[in-house]
Amino acid sequence: MHIELINTGSELLLGRVLNTHQQWICRQLADLGYEVTRNVCVADDGPSIQSAVRESLGRSDIVLTTGGLGPTSDDITRELIAQLLGRKLSQDAGALAGIERYFAQRHRPMPPGTEVQALVPEGALVLPNLNGTAPGLAMEVSPNPFRPDKCRSWLVLLPGPPRELRPMFTEFVRPLLLKEFPPPVFSCRTLHTTGMGESTVEEKIAGPLHALVGRGLEIGYCARIGEVDVRLIGRGDKGAEIVKQSETIVRDLLGPLIFGVDDTSLEATVVAMLAERKQIITLAESCTGGLIAHRLTNVPGASVVLDSDMVTYSNAAKKFLLGVREETLVMHGAVSSAVARQMAEGARARRGADYALAVTGIAGPDGGTPQKPVGTVFIALAGNSGTIVEERHNPFDRETFKFVTSQQALDLLRRTLAG
Amino acid sequence: MHIELINTGSELLLGRVLNTHQQWICRQLADLGYEVTRNVCVADDGPSIQSAVRESLGRSDIVLTTGGLGPTSDDITRELIAQLLGRKLSQDAGALAGIERYFAQRHRPMPPGTEVQALVPEGALVLPNLNGTAPGLAMEVSPNPFRPDKCRSWLVLLPGPPRELRPMFTEFVRPLLLKEFPPPVFSCRTLHTTGMGESTVEEKIAGPLHALVGRGLEIGYCARIGEVDVRLIGRGDKGAEIVKQSETIVRDLLGPLIFGVDDTSLEATVVAMLAERKQIITLAESCTGGLIAHRLTNVPGASVVLDSDMVTYSNAAKKFLLGVREETLVMHGAVSSAVARQMAEGARARRGADYALAVTGIAGPDGGTPQKPVGTVFIALAGNSGTIVEERHNPFDRETFKFVTSQQALDLLRRTLAG
Repeated sequence: MHIELINTGSELLLGRVLNTHQQWICRQLADLGYEVTRNVCVADDGPSIQSAVRESLGRSDIVLTTGGLGPTSDDITRELIAQLLGRKLSQDAGALAGIERYFAQRHRPMPPGTEVQALVPEGALVLPNLNGTAPGLAMEVSPNPFRPDKCRSWLVLLPGPPRELRPMFTEFVRPLLLKEFPPPVFSCRTLHTTGMGESTVEEKIAGPLHALVGRGLEIGYCARIGEVDVRLIGRGDKGAEIVKQSETIVRDLLGPLIFGVDDTSLEATVVAMLAERKQIITLAESCTGGLIAHRLTNVPGASVVLDSDMVTYSNAAKKFLLGVREETLVMHGAVSSAVARQMAEGARARRGADYALAVTGIAGPDGGTPQKPVGTVFIALAGNSGTIVEERHNPFDRETFKFVTSQQALDLLRRTLAG
Repeated sequence: MHIELINTGSELLLGRVLNTHQQWICRQLADLGYEVTRNVCVADDGPSIQSAVRESLGRSDIVLTTGGLGPTSDDITRELIAQLLGRKLSQDAGALAGIERYFAQRHRPMPPGTEVQALVPEGALVLPNLNGTAPGLAMEVSPNPFRPDKCRSWLVLLPGPPRELRPMFTEFVRPLLLKEFPPPVFSCRTLHTTGMGESTVEEKIAGPLHALVGRGLEIGYCARIGEVDVRLIGRGDKGAEIVKQSETIVRDLLGPLIFGVDDTSLEATVVAMLAERKQIITLAESCTGGLIAHRLTNVPGASVVLDSDMVTYSNAAKKFLLGVREETLVMHGAVSSAVARQMAEGARARRGADYALAVTGIAGPDGGTPQKPVGTVFIALAGNSGTIVEERHNPFDRETFKFVTSQQALDLLRRTLAG
């Protein structure tokens, strides 16, 4: 089965906005067992949109488009598609009533020009918009004149704003696709690892998984900053069993490097582990500048486990807020194992937390020395059985340095909690 | 001129990762005066990649691909392209030396299989990778057998990881494109505003700019989270003058809403303003959980102006670290104007800073009440002429809430500094 997604919008090709539709829609379809075979982004102009839709229809069973259904002059998708398919556009009473209701409920007059959104190509289904005025449209193209075999395809037009598109997809597009194109049986599992590079991960697992690959297992590797994901896919009746067997093998080989599966982030893993143990953490960040706390507080419910973070960027703040000693700063420097230890132990004692995680390092671009080059970092974790200090070297640009260091710090905590 | 961008990676079409390359590369090209006409994403399989590249080459002067140059078995772009173009792959001594140097500098052995990345198609330029092992490749396809007119095209292959791709683009691809395809004369200025919605910004400036639009000015609006950018573009000989005139008009109309131009971020603006005044700031964050400090510390040189941040997620931490009074917490609640004020004034007094910026609010999804729904936030700024407290309502998802709130807090500081 071939599925293509077309995103329209000049702002995408000018690089002004991030294309979040692609990830969201592809993810929804993948979770249902469908696979998007191609994604295309084109500008808001007639020839670009028509040629993209024509080409995609020529290759696909399902084509989804986003954008261009609104009321303004650059919203031209509806008309272009009707023209391409040779279908008459006419006003749909139900669609018009939906738009009128939208404004009535908000006690706002309906602006002139809005009723263009109630125009519907002959034979199309109207997909109600629960959060906006532009309805979506779905139409069977049968026979499909653009396919060499003339087989039928479905074309689904969705509005651009995410808060309109997402509920429309979930409520109306999903059931339509499941009915028209029952998905193939499909099993997918993503294991998130940290602490090892992409090629080392592959070196460890590729050989032992070889036999399962022969039986249909598909393996994918995705290297992110401070993280490598291993994706295991199986298709057909035996897919789930093959994925299960391969996961067992990968877990045996990578064990503690794996911090989560599927949608779990490292920060969510750590928050859940602390919450389960009813333990409290405090942080003392220098070079990461608040990023560890930012990541932890992105997790709903973080307030149950996070007491505080003392971001001590100056030496004076390290002394005042954490009790780091002047003579230690003078003798070892702010970026040292001794200072990292005092930061963690000082934070833990002052806040009476179960754990305190501290980092001090040189983010760059300036501040490096031959002995301590840019990228040098010390990570300390103080707990009730003592303090661990690790030295790392992350010679990256400033933002990457901060992220990798936060990843290493959170992973030190995770490994310690996992015990 | 036609430019197409092809992103390869099954993880994109499975919706596992967000396609940040599209925005970044399109943005870089747009700023140089180029326009990307189409973006295509395909999975990591031979037929998909080859047909996408063949089709794009058939339409374009420049084709850029991302991904598939690494050392693992799903990294197949290099081989597929050599095959498609009928070029022999052979090991490049310089590329191999670069890879060996990468591992030597990190005191790590070179994993077997890594040397595949030194394979280079006949006639291709090697683009050094300053942050990884896979070099990029650039090749002139002349004559281009896939174009109806057989005109030459350039094909540029870039690695997938952003921290490898970005410096490679800036250092090597950019000068290559400027030399091979001098862009049309083009002038672009982006004004960043905060504090007003997109349609209000448009309503204020569109009329007064009308005459300049008649003379060729292009205006673009881009609404981001907590920010609206106004893009002014002029083409040809008179472009620069038209952009300059339009900027004067926009500045007259929007004045203090504009916080920066082109690549300036709000955090960089604030750091520069404080540094110029030789003033020090401390922070006291609750609901933003370290994000304000994270944003400020992304700016190189932030250590000159940022003393510390006390992220006080618990009430106990607010009392201990900031001196917030128990009775104030009981009487007004942690999310209140009174507590925001005490946080800011407590932080400023304890750290002896020129300014202290404090936020307390309800990020959600839980914790709201009818009186103080999710999204309620109080922002306080204490300085030597007193304390300002602002109440805001940001009823968004958790991460958007944090970002919008951090934007409002930094903007309160900016407006106060601008005085």
